[in-house]
Amino acid sequence: MHSVKFYPSNKSVSVRSGTSLLEAARKAGLEVNTNCGGEGICGKCKMIILEGDIPDKVSWPFNEAQIKKGWVLACLSLVYKDLTVEIPKKHRGEGNSTPVSENFGEEDKPHINELHYKTLPVVTKIYIEFEPPTIFSGQADHQLVSNGVKKRLNIPTMQMGLKIIKILPKVLRNNNYKVTITVGLRRDIAEIMNIEGGDTESSNYMVIVDMGTTTVVAHLVNAHPRTTVDSASCYNSQSIHGSEVTGRMIHAERKSVKVLQKLLVDDINRLIVMLCERNNVDIKNINAVVCAGNTAMEHFLLDLSTNNIRRKPFIPVTVEPPPLRASEVGLKVNKRGLLYSLPGISGWVGSDLTAGILAVQMYKKKELGLLIDIGTNGEVILGNRDWLVATSASAGPALEGASVECGMRAEPGAVDKVFVESGIIKYSTINKQPPIGICGSGIIDLLSVLLNEKIIDRSGRFIDENRTSETGEANKRRFVLVEETNQEDNSIYLTEKDIENIITAKAAIFAAITIIMQRLSLKFSDLDTFYIAGAFGYYLNIENAINIGLLPPLPLDKFKFSGNTSIKGAKLAAFYQEAFNELTRIRSATTYYDLLGADDYVEEFKKAMFLPHTDIDYWRAIS
Amino acid sequence: MHSVKFYPSNKSVSVRSGTSLLEAARKAGLEVNTNCGGEGICGKCKMIILEGDIPDKVSWPFNEAQIKKGWVLACLSLVYKDLTVEIPKKHRGEGNSTPVSENFGEEDKPHINELHYKTLPVVTKIYIEFEPPTIFSGQADHQLVSNGVKKRLNIPTMQMGLKIIKILPKVLRNNNYKVTITVGLRRDIAEIMNIEGGDTESSNYMVIVDMGTTTVVAHLVNAHPRTTVDSASCYNSQSIHGSEVTGRMIHAERKSVKVLQKLLVDDINRLIVMLCERNNVDIKNINAVVCAGNTAMEHFLLDLSTNNIRRKPFIPVTVEPPPLRASEVGLKVNKRGLLYSLPGISGWVGSDLTAGILAVQMYKKKELGLLIDIGTNGEVILGNRDWLVATSASAGPALEGASVECGMRAEPGAVDKVFVESGIIKYSTINKQPPIGICGSGIIDLLSVLLNEKIIDRSGRFIDENRTSETGEANKRRFVLVEETNQEDNSIYLTEKDIENIITAKAAIFAAITIIMQRLSLKFSDLDTFYIAGAFGYYLNIENAINIGLLPPLPLDKFKFSGNTSIKGAKLAAFYQEAFNELTRIRSATTYYDLLGADDYVEEFKKAMFLPHTDIDYWRAIS
Repeated sequence: MHSVKFYPSNKSVSVRSGTSLLEAARKAGLEVNTNCGGEGICGKCKMIILEGDIPDKVSWPFNEAQIKKGWVLACLSLVYKDLTVEIPKKHRGEGNSTPVSENFGEEDKPHINELHYKTLPVVTKIYIEFEPPTIFSGQADHQLVSNGVKKRLNIPTMQMGLKIIKILPKVLRNNNYKVTITVGLRRDIAEIMNIEGGDTESSNYMVIVDMGTTTVVAHLVNAHPRTTVDSASCYNSQSIHGSEVTGRMIHAERKSVKVLQKLLVDDINRLIVMLCERNNVDIKNINAVVCAGNTAMEHFLLDLSTNNIRRKPFIPVTVEPPPLRASEVGLKVNKRGLLYSLPGISGWVGSDLTAGILAVQMYKKKELGLLIDIGTNGEVILGNRDWLVATSASAGPALEGASVECGMRAEPGAVDKVFVESGIIKYSTINKQPPIGICGSGIIDLLSVLLNEKIIDRSGRFIDENRTSETGEANKRRFVLVEETNQEDNSIYLTEKDIENIITAKAAIFAAITIIMQRLSLKFSDLDTFYIAGAFGYYLNIENAINIGLLPPLPLDKFKFSGNTSIKGAKLAAFYQEAFNELTRIRSATTYYDLLGADDYVEEFKKAMFLPHTDIDYWRAIS
Repeated sequence: MHSVKFYPSNKSVSVRSGTSLLEAARKAGLEVNTNCGGEGICGKCKMIILEGDIPDKVSWPFNEAQIKKGWVLACLSLVYKDLTVEIPKKHRGEGNSTPVSENFGEEDKPHINELHYKTLPVVTKIYIEFEPPTIFSGQADHQLVSNGVKKRLNIPTMQMGLKIIKILPKVLRNNNYKVTITVGLRRDIAEIMNIEGGDTESSNYMVIVDMGTTTVVAHLVNAHPRTTVDSASCYNSQSIHGSEVTGRMIHAERKSVKVLQKLLVDDINRLIVMLCERNNVDIKNINAVVCAGNTAMEHFLLDLSTNNIRRKPFIPVTVEPPPLRASEVGLKVNKRGLLYSLPGISGWVGSDLTAGILAVQMYKKKELGLLIDIGTNGEVILGNRDWLVATSASAGPALEGASVECGMRAEPGAVDKVFVESGIIKYSTINKQPPIGICGSGIIDLLSVLLNEKIIDRSGRFIDENRTSETGEANKRRFVLVEETNQEDNSIYLTEKDIENIITAKAAIFAAITIIMQRLSLKFSDLDTFYIAGAFGYYLNIENAINIGLLPPLPLDKFKFSGNTSIKGAKLAAFYQEAFNELTRIRSATTYYDLLGADDYVEEFKKAMFLPHTDIDYWRAIS
């Protein structure tokens, strides 16, 4: 056994010979950024060896100075001696939960107001003062409460579990029959989840979660009145078992789905704890967790087998899980709180997309709309109030800031815009913090600027030797956006490998759009609205996205940047039962088209591997 | 510590000084008959001390020969030495579960057939051969099954728990999509409880339970086709904490409801095991337990507080418990099997009565009916299809064979009829077995015969010294029906104390009937049908019941002996969902009238304490 001590946390751990530094750090309870699952691909898990040494050091992705200083990739570094190691700030997971932008409120409010839903939240609290029973009018406690709630909410079928029935006599009598009842709703069934003394109507919180393959986002909301209190996000810890869902499904099949479940549930629990602490909300007052995500993620959350999702004919266990007790999957909220996993469409188009359709309301409109959700999996929804077709393509996590060396989530300090001013390439960061990385919108901007400035060619290769620099590695140039200001690895740059990943992502998505339009014999010009969703923070430069060929060259006013529609739709469903019920209708109304059945998909994908496209004439004619 | 050895079981047990023999026997796992809760009142727990001795022997209820032989009452005998004790056959609980009559089938069949219900049993199994999914028509497993069942059963709302959803992929694929689905129904909601490979439709059993204060009766039924397989009953083991529910409620309040719950659940479990073993039914194939009983019993079953039932304004926790997982209360059937506790009317009129109303169908008839259920609590229901009124009176367990020294349940060997033939008092027993005691119908017959033969006067006192005999005790004569044939205590007799208990029971019931008729300004002659329910086995001589004043002197053709209507109604509800739903309607349609609010009840009760009544002219005029 060898001892490994980590700085700056000062945590030590004993490990066997041959354990990787990444595993050692995890064993010590430290979070380390990684996207590739510890396979030496993403180059994110950088550490510096201060004392001791490891065999077989790899030079990638470091320069000579760094190698000399002791920089290593933790996943590829095996421990055979006692070591003292530093984890540089940029590569720490930081408890894996750091706040997203605080602008969520601005974004949600007009959206929710303009839809005019009138129904109750999925979990609602009602304060009732009952008449104490007399010998002449004495209902049983259970029927008294149940009938009172039925009458107030106008709901025919009411369920109450034995555990709640048991506490009724005391709660009613100790509080002089003045009580607040928590009711969980689902279509025409309501469940009385809790009963408390006094009026606690205003303490009814919910957590809305977008379970992305790469990023998990959580919003803390209050149901009374309906407000978003705060939000937070973290990288999905499942990425240690693969950056895309397929790798995780394989891991689940070999080991157990429970491994994936625990990682995800722990992430969500961490976000919940953080949101509650930061806002002085008692975790017991969280009565519901409403989750949207791709179908695999939903299966991981519920410990359901994903084996048949990745095999023909790609059948998930469920696309509409029932509401559960949140504690049943290990979520730590009110012990009787409910978990609503929203309904999805197929094994490869999940509830993040039904939520997206709900958020942009394209299923209610006469005009033809197309929604793309840019994530690790790219999904495309096409249709209107009469029909909806969905498809999905594996894009990889580049546009979420993963699989890009200096990439990061859209959080304070991320470069979110890049532009040219007076001939100089400039940038801005989220919350005007000192730059620590570059997020999706910044990546798209930067690629567009590099193309316009002729620093790269249309295939993404560097063509301007003056404005790019060599790295330690052979054939690996990079463009440095932010110069290194000290000995640490603080520079922000883009490598040719990064650019390749970005182009692959945009090509996958564009090919999916192209195929689905072709199948329905539609031209791009038939589209009335082009909704763009994704974890881009609250900024995306449409012109730059068109310039690199992620989006087709349509008139700008047809595009509508819709932000994280998964969270938005899930929040709508949580706030308004009517919206929740619409998700089921959206689910059944949407047809899934599988690109694996499309022989021409690969061809379209290859054509889109240029900036903006191989066939520039065809491209220009799209609009 | 002292050792106590019991014969003939050969079980030994160590107990502290001062432990009663009754407790010692229970500790040794032996069941002993007792009705009074071990308070020296019922005189049932007789034992014979073979070796050793106890202090402070009581002489009652033994004669000198018995005392000499070492007979004692176990509840009043404290252990201060090592003892060897025999439990005579008659006083053993016999595992507390002995079969009732085998005629149940005859009794049920015409009844069920004539009602023309058409809906499914509350738990039903359906075999479905699904089309395996393809890439073009691939529903998720959950939706495939759920939609298949919805379509087949024509039910809008379908619930399926996560545990069942989890096993779907394997069960479907391992059985080539040919599966049997167990569905629990309740109104317009259905729950998929289980899924198995192949066609197991015919293995769908239910257990129907009547939870009486004194006796617990269980019927094993098959839902496909609807048949009663077998039945069994036992004394309610809760009687160690009081022969009537009030004593048990006090015990529950002082200690815990769980104590009462466990005793009842153990009784039911023992009956289930016995029924399953005797009929080669796998306990896993029991998918539902359907229970009827008085409200206190239902509360004990569910571990609900009975504190407010016995205090003004007499409010139960619930009169319509939700269906639960049977395992939640400790019932051992299929681990996902359901427990249906039927809806009752008030704290003092339980689901045994709603089931009774269902069984005799008086709530559907234009004619005026009156139903009395003769048990430890006597309940009276009056009404027709337009209105129903219920009341209840504490009768004591005499007419169930308890609180009568030689009393017993209606089971083989019980004297069930007593009559005079050629001037000689004769009797018959159930199944023509040698007589071992006397059950309710025999007790009523015997009292009537004693009155007719002028062996007792109208107050119930012995007036014929020649045909009665002294007991060891002062002022305690008895009439011996069956002479002792050997040294053992095998004689069957009635004491003046027994007769007092019987008269008290009949007076309580008759007074309740009288008051409820008066309140509604009705005369007995207004009644079209007088239904008599109770645990009398399948025989009750109406003339004798009239003769002693238990029933009013109406024309015989107005009476309808309806047997155990609690079991019958519960079985109807189990077999036909439509009948189950009617119970809820019966519950809400019935008004409870509390005799505690009736100042004249005690007066009517006193008047009825003669045979047949104090005011014989009034009595004769009733008809």
